[in-house]
Amino acid sequence: MAKGFLDKLTEKWDGGKFVCIGLDQQAVSSGNKSAFEFNKNIIDSTHNLVCAYKPNSAFYEALGAEGWNILKQTVDYLRNNYPDIPLILDAKRADIGNTNTEYAKAIFDKLGFDALTVHPYLGKEAMQPFLDRTDKGIIVLVKTSNPGSGEFQDLEVGTEKLPLYQAVAKNVASSWNYNGNCAVVVGATYPDELKKVRGIIGDMPILIPGIGAQGGDLEAILQAGLNSKGQGIIISVSRSIIFAQNPKEAAQTLHSQIQEILKNV
Amino acid sequence: MAKGFLDKLTEKWDGGKFVCIGLDQQAVSSGNKSAFEFNKNIIDSTHNLVCAYKPNSAFYEALGAEGWNILKQTVDYLRNNYPDIPLILDAKRADIGNTNTEYAKAIFDKLGFDALTVHPYLGKEAMQPFLDRTDKGIIVLVKTSNPGSGEFQDLEVGTEKLPLYQAVAKNVASSWNYNGNCAVVVGATYPDELKKVRGIIGDMPILIPGIGAQGGDLEAILQAGLNSKGQGIIISVSRSIIFAQNPKEAAQTLHSQIQEILKNV
Repeated sequence: MAKGFLDKLTEKWDGGKFVCIGLDQQAVSSGNKSAFEFNKNIIDSTHNLVCAYKPNSAFYEALGAEGWNILKQTVDYLRNNYPDIPLILDAKRADIGNTNTEYAKAIFDKLGFDALTVHPYLGKEAMQPFLDRTDKGIIVLVKTSNPGSGEFQDLEVGTEKLPLYQAVAKNVASSWNYNGNCAVVVGATYPDELKKVRGIIGDMPILIPGIGAQGGDLEAILQAGLNSKGQGIIISVSRSIIFAQNPKEAAQTLHSQIQEILKNV
Repeated sequence: MAKGFLDKLTEKWDGGKFVCIGLDQQAVSSGNKSAFEFNKNIIDSTHNLVCAYKPNSAFYEALGAEGWNILKQTVDYLRNNYPDIPLILDAKRADIGNTNTEYAKAIFDKLGFDALTVHPYLGKEAMQPFLDRTDKGIIVLVKTSNPGSGEFQDLEVGTEKLPLYQAVAKNVASSWNYNGNCAVVVGATYPDELKKVRGIIGDMPILIPGIGAQGGDLEAILQAGLNSKGQGIIISVSRSIIFAQNPKEAAQTLHSQIQEILKNV
């Protein structure tokens, strides 16, 4: 049986790797080289530094059917050349159950991803076609990195007066995670909220976007986000690596910064 | 200038049409005819009965790049043959602003849809690339039709103790709708909640899925959902029309039932 998402991820963490590169390329619109070649170049020069790759579906959909082919080509290239690296599709899907079954087919079976990001809004009952996939990672949005994420996520809910994002984290940890395949998203721009979420979810993985272009503080998020094993975090960076003059160097620098901070945490 | 989503929709309502057909076909997997031919057949036999068509993206993504082509072919066919019918992509997207710009390109510019369904979880600030598109419809999930939708949507929030779904409806109506291009989704399976939402949002359009296979009550939702003009609702049906032995007859029956009820509302 093929290794599941969490097993693959844990192997990478055991090797000291916490950087996830977001393959959110706009290479076709920039017109210089093919979008697949753009991805291949990033992958070949960074594969030994990362714990995961995470294409964002939107950037491929913007290219139409051709974008879907490039996404598939990218996944196939990774599978054939670097089969141990977990592959996350950042697609932020969520619909009723009947429809989620189709998304699961599209993303896990047809494209071949190991994990998917999802919205919590429809609740666990609708998400079972994802949650039932024991070998796949279901990464639920909890506190997103954008400046306006508090509009609903920070509203206090229920008798406990928890902010909604904490209520989501609590339900995911206590109820959605019956197959041990859930993770959550917390933006690097919110280290205090990250610490709260870590306190709620135990050792579950946290995908943390927002370092780099969005301005999150690396040391603060490592201190807030690590689990009891000194692992459990996926530091996701897109623009500041893939559009760097030298992506390998940019990834190496981030990887080294993390190593340095980990010595003192 | 091409007519915007709301203008097109209002024309259909003025003509007494409130049925939206969800083109959520699984024809390719059933193997009998091509997926585009399946859609074309539905469209040709129902175009004079509907206020909109609404493909759900998941069913096309499950077919890979080929599905994307079929979706595009379906939109092009509708544009060329029935240009006055509003086209909604039920894709339930939402990401940070930078990424939503790509989704807007994909769905409005590349595919050519008039409207899109979106999740509210990231807040208005992230949604501006959609909300700024004055000619397009932005249809925000408020109370979804699935049985477990209450997990978060019914939680009481803030000092007013409104259920979250009502807080979302309130913000969409009072703040997100600065271009008058917003609508909301409320499931037909929740007529009481539909009535509450209508009370909050004034005359804004409501997309109402859940009649048919999901079991919503047509008379109850018309009574709860109509706006002050006796319009404002998009009754969305998928499986019970497109998989009917005679889709035209099934659409005609629903259309007639609505006409009959409207006489007495």
